[in-house]
Amino acid sequence: MVLRAAVAGASGYAGGEVLRVLLGHPEIEIGAVTANSSAGELLGTVQPHLLPLADRVLEPTTPEVLAGHDVVFLALPHGASAAVAERLGDRVLVVDCGADFRLREAAAWERYYGSPHAGTWPYGLPELPGGREALRGVKRIAVPGCYPTAVSLALFPAYAAGIAEPEAVIVAASGTSGAGKAAKPHLLGSEVMGSMSPYGVGGVHRHTPEMAQNLSAVAGRQVTVSFTPTLAPMPRGILATCSVKAGPGVTAASLRETYAKALAAEPFVHLLPEGRWPATGAVQGSNAALLQVAHDPDAARIVVVAAIDNLTKGTAGGAVQSMNIALGLPEETGLPTTAVAP
Amino acid sequence: MVLRAAVAGASGYAGGEVLRVLLGHPEIEIGAVTANSSAGELLGTVQPHLLPLADRVLEPTTPEVLAGHDVVFLALPHGASAAVAERLGDRVLVVDCGADFRLREAAAWERYYGSPHAGTWPYGLPELPGGREALRGVKRIAVPGCYPTAVSLALFPAYAAGIAEPEAVIVAASGTSGAGKAAKPHLLGSEVMGSMSPYGVGGVHRHTPEMAQNLSAVAGRQVTVSFTPTLAPMPRGILATCSVKAGPGVTAASLRETYAKALAAEPFVHLLPEGRWPATGAVQGSNAALLQVAHDPDAARIVVVAAIDNLTKGTAGGAVQSMNIALGLPEETGLPTTAVAP
Amino acid sequence: MVLRAAVAGASGYAGGEVLRVLLGHPEIEIGAVTANSSAGELLGTVQPHLLPLADRVLEPTTPEVLAGHDVVFLALPHGASAAVAERLGDRVLVVDCGADFRLREAAAWERYYGSPHAGTWPYGLPELPGGREALRGVKRIAVPGCYPTAVSLALFPAYAAGIAEPEAVIVAASGTSGAGKAAKPHLLGSEVMGSMSPYGVGGVHRHTPEMAQNLSAVAGRQVTVSFTPTLAPMPRGILATCSVKAGPGVTAASLRETYAKALAAEPFVHLLPEGRWPATGAVQGSNAALLQVAHDPDAARIVVVAAIDNLTKGTAGGAVQSMNIALGLPEETGLPTTAVAP
Amino acid sequence: MVLRAAVAGASGYAGGEVLRVLLGHPEIEIGAVTANSSAGELLGTVQPHLLPLADRVLEPTTPEVLAGHDVVFLALPHGASAAVAERLGDRVLVVDCGADFRLREAAAWERYYGSPHAGTWPYGLPELPGGREALRGVKRIAVPGCYPTAVSLALFPAYAAGIAEPEAVIVAASGTSGAGKAAKPHLLGSEVMGSMSPYGVGGVHRHTPEMAQNLSAVAGRQVTVSFTPTLAPMPRGILATCSVKAGPGVTAASLRETYAKALAAEPFVHLLPEGRWPATGAVQGSNAALLQVAHDPDAARIVVVAAIDNLTKGTAGGAVQSMNIALGLPEETGLPTTAVAP
Repeated sequence: MVLRAAVAGASGYAGGEVLRVLLGHPEIEIGAVTANSSAGELLGTVQPHLLPLADRVLEPTTPEVLAGHDVVFLALPHGASAAVAERLGDRVLVVDCGADFRLREAAAWERYYGSPHAGTWPYGLPELPGGREALRGVKRIAVPGCYPTAVSLALFPAYAAGIAEPEAVIVAASGTSGAGKAAKPHLLGSEVMGSMSPYGVGGVHRHTPEMAQNLSAVAGRQVTVSFTPTLAPMPRGILATCSVKAGPGVTAASLRETYAKALAAEPFVHLLPEGRWPATGAVQGSNAALLQVAHDPDAARIVVVAAIDNLTKGTAGGAVQSMNIALGLPEETGLPTTAVAP
Repeated sequence: MVLRAAVAGASGYAGGEVLRVLLGHPEIEIGAVTANSSAGELLGTVQPHLLPLADRVLEPTTPEVLAGHDVVFLALPHGASAAVAERLGDRVLVVDCGADFRLREAAAWERYYGSPHAGTWPYGLPELPGGREALRGVKRIAVPGCYPTAVSLALFPAYAAGIAEPEAVIVAASGTSGAGKAAKPHLLGSEVMGSMSPYGVGGVHRHTPEMAQNLSAVAGRQVTVSFTPTLAPMPRGILATCSVKAGPGVTAASLRETYAKALAAEPFVHLLPEGRWPATGAVQGSNAALLQVAHDPDAARIVVVAAIDNLTKGTAGGAVQSMNIALGLPEETGLPTTAVAP
Repeated sequence: MVLRAAVAGASGYAGGEVLRVLLGHPEIEIGAVTANSSAGELLGTVQPHLLPLADRVLEPTTPEVLAGHDVVFLALPHGASAAVAERLGDRVLVVDCGADFRLREAAAWERYYGSPHAGTWPYGLPELPGGREALRGVKRIAVPGCYPTAVSLALFPAYAAGIAEPEAVIVAASGTSGAGKAAKPHLLGSEVMGSMSPYGVGGVHRHTPEMAQNLSAVAGRQVTVSFTPTLAPMPRGILATCSVKAGPGVTAASLRETYAKALAAEPFVHLLPEGRWPATGAVQGSNAALLQVAHDPDAARIVVVAAIDNLTKGTAGGAVQSMNIALGLPEETGLPTTAVAP
Repeated sequence: MVLRAAVAGASGYAGGEVLRVLLGHPEIEIGAVTANSSAGELLGTVQPHLLPLADRVLEPTTPEVLAGHDVVFLALPHGASAAVAERLGDRVLVVDCGADFRLREAAAWERYYGSPHAGTWPYGLPELPGGREALRGVKRIAVPGCYPTAVSLALFPAYAAGIAEPEAVIVAASGTSGAGKAAKPHLLGSEVMGSMSPYGVGGVHRHTPEMAQNLSAVAGRQVTVSFTPTLAPMPRGILATCSVKAGPGVTAASLRETYAKALAAEPFVHLLPEGRWPATGAVQGSNAALLQVAHDPDAARIVVVAAIDNLTKGTAGGAVQSMNIALGLPEETGLPTTAVAP
């Protein structure tokens, strides 16, 4: 039985990627595609790479248009999801690619977003301990942020095994699509090509509390996260370098074994063979996360590097993976682990 | 009934893309993957983006290894295909991604390649007039070159309709994967990023006679091709700008109508709506070719611009499209027209 | 004696490059730097690469601020230069990097720009026949467009020698800085990286009549230009491929000799040795133009490829070169021919 | 009085950048340029961006060719410098851009390079405490590694002021020119464009002991360095993110004041105004280092981000800066702080 899905915010990068993934999903039929300022335009005009949908007309993002679907994906600006979801009712599965329902603590939300907390929905990162169970049969899913996806996948095995100290230092590079499609001068091709730069340094990036929430839950105690995001001259991809002080007795071999065991059954998270390191180019358009680990005995630290596609595993692929679980479909349905490279 | 396909030259860009496309083909099972210097290595080491095949071992490219498959794709250096194909026998479908069997005239081959002509196989560009008929049931396919694919698709409607003079001026930009995976200093990232440069100027590029062969056949008279390839700072994609003197009476409207009619039934070649121009980014990983036409009344010229992915429609996707026809499968089987963008 | 120069429009790419070049000019002292919407900001905020000027405050672009300088560079939107220049008086040298005063024919201006023609100033391309003479001692200079600079340098020797037919087919790739610093969605890094696309196809680009004007003047008869610009995934550089039908008797040797002779004394335009082709990466930040020629006997065509930096030789460097002549300084003063590479 | 300088290893990226910088140096005349496998070729063939030197012939790297210069720059593979330097005698200034003489401890050298330690030369990072004094009048200079330059500049103020704990976590992104000009498959443009990847993770990168040496000397106690380098899709630039635990009592204001005071007199190291972050694009071709600092109170950490051009301040510019000091020239002679951007 094929289900019908609508995508709200289909003119942006996240919405476009949801559509791209759904086009390869055998159990989903694409229904309404909606936008705000682009409503009335052909999808082919704003998303020329989605050729099978080129003649679709973008409709306005209204409850009426979104009604009557089995699944509704929201790829809207922060703060807009709650009102839309409320009107859709409890029987439709709403998958929110935005931040509104990711955080459990209202105080953290208010500190980082400066607005009232909308609430908390089941969190769409199945790989976390208990993650799959928390998604089965649900009607609301909060899709994780792209950086928290990469970082949580990189560090949960260490914290679940209790082999890492509770202070994580994260430096991550993201492709420019993570900054969205709104035209801003510092995101011009002229500015970003050939240049790397940081932003949101010093703990102020909004994904920081989400990482701390995930890692603390796994560790069973408060984990502090020092997070520095950087903008890299590429359209897609996140490379997250995650450094934590090793707990007592950790060796290169025990570290590797911990990760191999934790990830053995994961369909999308792969520990690379020794000697190979993840590259974002190897996950372009794929739902896979590639991981490698190192133990630095001089510094007594564990370094885990994770590569994901920020739009696929980091947003739309992750969203569909959680949708699959919520709907009772096989988790891997329609989700590529083959990337487009070079 | 699922067929088994082998890929010879699986460590290079063309071979890797054949595998990527075949991984999405519902009627094909991937058999042997072979290489020369990389034989013995894991496919995951040399093609880390092909995660589902990461544990496959590259075997040597020998007739014994390639035997017993229904289809064998050859992605070998020029001059190597004939000997391999001969040993495979007449009952296996051999799809050659190399140049050896593309040209009809031995003199043209010898002039451009400096070696004896191996022969001529059915030519794998179904969109050309009579192209599909020439492929049905065949056991040998010569996959076109990437530039000739783009240029032939761009200009065949004009020549078939007799609205263009027989002198074509072509300037095309290609991504660096078109130059292959062999490490050469001028292909280093440091050299190509931020830089455009031409090569093979003045009619000496080996794809020139193939373009002339295709366009002359369509036009029914000798078409001269002046071809300038350029190397662009991107991994994939060809943007071909094709300029021909307009025949008498051509107008913007009649030009558009000619193309719309010629391409109406084509599953992979799309004439964009007026006002939009093709971008290679919109076909990354897709088997689609995007076209747009313009009539310049001051210069009395027709300009057609085509964008393809050099590795997909320009090589591996085109190869599988022709394979589908040869095998009697629906032509579009397993071939994406959705691209990975941005 | 050091002269004082003001730069109007110092927040954009052209204005920034004028400042960069002037910082290396031994006879120029930088006076006022002005902007419109950025007025009041530190130059370091909008042009962080101009470290020696980081603490300068952008002033508003008014006649009062620009008064009292020996030279005023205008890097303003089209249509704005005339009013400013008029207020500056006849004793100050005004160098207009915009298009307003480039065209001689009012009809061509009105057709391509849709507004009244402001007039014609001495044209700042010293390499054209008579070009230097036309600039000595002048108080107004119209800096050529970036594409016309590349194309005119590439083809003037052929037309001056009478060895080319009067129909030029030009395809040129430009870095994204040519499109300016105004934030537009199609110029986002996410959109341009990894992608090539054409624009203004079919003779509609505004630089077309300027090319025709230059080449016709050199040829002594009307030259028709078919011009296709493309946007390349790089911040800087123009690679212009210029194809013309060869006149009778042209050979590879005679073509080369024609160009060698025409360019022998040029300080900034270099014919490369045989076998080497221009790359935009080799002129990044340099005022040099690199050329190479080929004769295609099968197509009976001449192909000339030119590489320049669109912001340096194509805008600011060319502007300073012409300024030097107008001021009676040695033409090469302060102008680098060394590029930053890789 | 103009001095003559030779450059050994002029065909590579470091040697080419030394030449580029020296072309702008008013007190230096370029003498011999030498290479190994490229000896006999024109410099214009291997370094087409150095147009003023295009007709120079590369000579073999022999003591005879290098003799008779006032300064000799060595840009040779590791292990080759000692033998060359010995033959040059004690009266010529030898500036080694390689690693051979950077480390003070033979054990560290042997562990990381696996060969006998050649010795220790005066270290060419003038900004370090006592750095300038150690360079005056010397005849041998060990130019720092590119990463150690960035990291040492970023962290020396914190360690000199005693406000940081002695465990530094460093993640740095480098442009591909840092990996040199030797053609290796993983450095192909096709592989690096659109992709970020780490290498040398876990304390094994050879620049690690050099960072520890510098920071420990400044701190007056052993500083442990956990260093992760990553390869970024750009030709030039290093962005180093440096994270250290803050000492007691550190605040955002005190941190900023510490850095402002330490860097106030530095001609090449600039602390950016609050709210602005360094981008490698803003130092392309410049000898400047741009820094910004943040205090993360939740994590109790200091984060310092530094951007340099790996080839300029990170290699050739730094080399010339130290040369200036050794020769008694003003330190800033011939060294640009203006970058080529965008």
